[in-house]
Amino acid sequence: MATRNLALRLSYDGSAYHGWQTQKNDSSVQETLEKALEKVCGHRVHAVGCGRTDAGVHALRYCANFKTDCPIPTDRLPYAVNARLPRDIAVQAAVEVDEGFNAIGSCIKKEYIYKILNRDIRDPFLEKRACFYPQRLDLEQMCRAAAAFEGTHDFKAVRSVGTETRTTVRTVHWCRVEKDGDLITVSICADGFLYNMCRAIVGTLVYASYGKLLPEEIPALLERGDRRLTGPTMPPQGLYLNRVWYEGPAGALFFR
Amino acid sequence: MATRNLALRLSYDGSAYHGWQTQKNDSSVQETLEKALEKVCGHRVHAVGCGRTDAGVHALRYCANFKTDCPIPTDRLPYAVNARLPRDIAVQAAVEVDEGFNAIGSCIKKEYIYKILNRDIRDPFLEKRACFYPQRLDLEQMCRAAAAFEGTHDFKAVRSVGTETRTTVRTVHWCRVEKDGDLITVSICADGFLYNMCRAIVGTLVYASYGKLLPEEIPALLERGDRRLTGPTMPPQGLYLNRVWYEGPAGALFFR
Repeated sequence: MATRNLALRLSYDGSAYHGWQTQKNDSSVQETLEKALEKVCGHRVHAVGCGRTDAGVHALRYCANFKTDCPIPTDRLPYAVNARLPRDIAVQAAVEVDEGFNAIGSCIKKEYIYKILNRDIRDPFLEKRACFYPQRLDLEQMCRAAAAFEGTHDFKAVRSVGTETRTTVRTVHWCRVEKDGDLITVSICADGFLYNMCRAIVGTLVYASYGKLLPEEIPALLERGDRRLTGPTMPPQGLYLNRVWYEGPAGALFFR
Repeated sequence: MATRNLALRLSYDGSAYHGWQTQKNDSSVQETLEKALEKVCGHRVHAVGCGRTDAGVHALRYCANFKTDCPIPTDRLPYAVNARLPRDIAVQAAVEVDEGFNAIGSCIKKEYIYKILNRDIRDPFLEKRACFYPQRLDLEQMCRAAAAFEGTHDFKAVRSVGTETRTTVRTVHWCRVEKDGDLITVSICADGFLYNMCRAIVGTLVYASYGKLLPEEIPALLERGDRRLTGPTMPPQGLYLNRVWYEGPAGALFFR
């Protein structure tokens, strides 16, 4: 059988993993998925993910692709793989893509969401699923601050060092804040994200919400590019990769 | 200080517990709560719960009461107790009630909900939070079957043996089925519940949904009172105590 390139849409609760990428001593989503794929396909598999997610970060819709010459029908693959995956990871759908498709390289844009439980008592059902923040947050200030991140900017001021990147300029298509009851959700869509960029942006919105900095100051802070002047990196458990955009059949996988 | 009788509204993710009631070798919500209360109050505490919940069953709003002569202000109590509770249990509110109030004896009615994820692929975020049921369920048949449980009946046909009870007659105020996306929710409100009654009713709705029995047969099945003729006891993880009704201040605790 000819080699096929298959794209998967998966979701995972990241609580038990050290992120997507395989680590030396810790279990990763990538490694766990590759092992399950290996059992189904009968050969070693290399899965390419659409991005790193950190330890404890979740994915509602994540894209990975891999190449195989095993004959299993594409539409049966999710069931076969899920039977071999732990229950905190599930393949939701699979589609055959062009040979040149690559989950990270072919990605047009991504959306992350960050959930904050903003009330004074914890919710046991949101433990590890949202950031618990008991201090009252000002939604209007957060919205104003969020708008300042939209557009094409150098985002050096909101990234943690540690990973090499050609450029720190990114385009944020939207950065929005919504509230539903006690749950605040920040949605950030961009053509790419720097290391910890989402969590640092949300930390900056939180700072803006109680006046530690003003929304009007954000353009100047981005300009200066000094990570020490923006807000803290928020904890991982509130962060979810929510959506990924592609051209062609992989794109359809995320819009059905 | 005079002895006060305090009622608590709590919520818990029951995944890690052997139900509400203290067991010999397994951890229970009651025991965990009593230990935290003891640390706050400085004396041994006996907490009375509004009902047993089984291992793995959750509570969105549960009522417990206890007596204490410690001087902590009632409105500060939740924060003090939560600081000593694991994160899968949280006291949401507290109120002082009459000396004679008893979380189980004073309870007027209770509502349980049962969540079924009805699609062919698991959702990692509903693991231990809903019953995964991949076979397609017929909502209309489930609704018709649910209506047959409403009213005052002998519910012997949908209870597991094991606990003593004066009578097996109960009044079901409502038994409803709703669907939101792939999630089916059954809500059952009654003046009291027999052992495993909710889970056996839901199992019977599932049977009705694929024709293993007809909704019209349910009155006769209740009449016969034979547990072997109704549906299976559904797994615990889909079940949540959702609401409890009381007169007076404890009642207000559940409606604010």
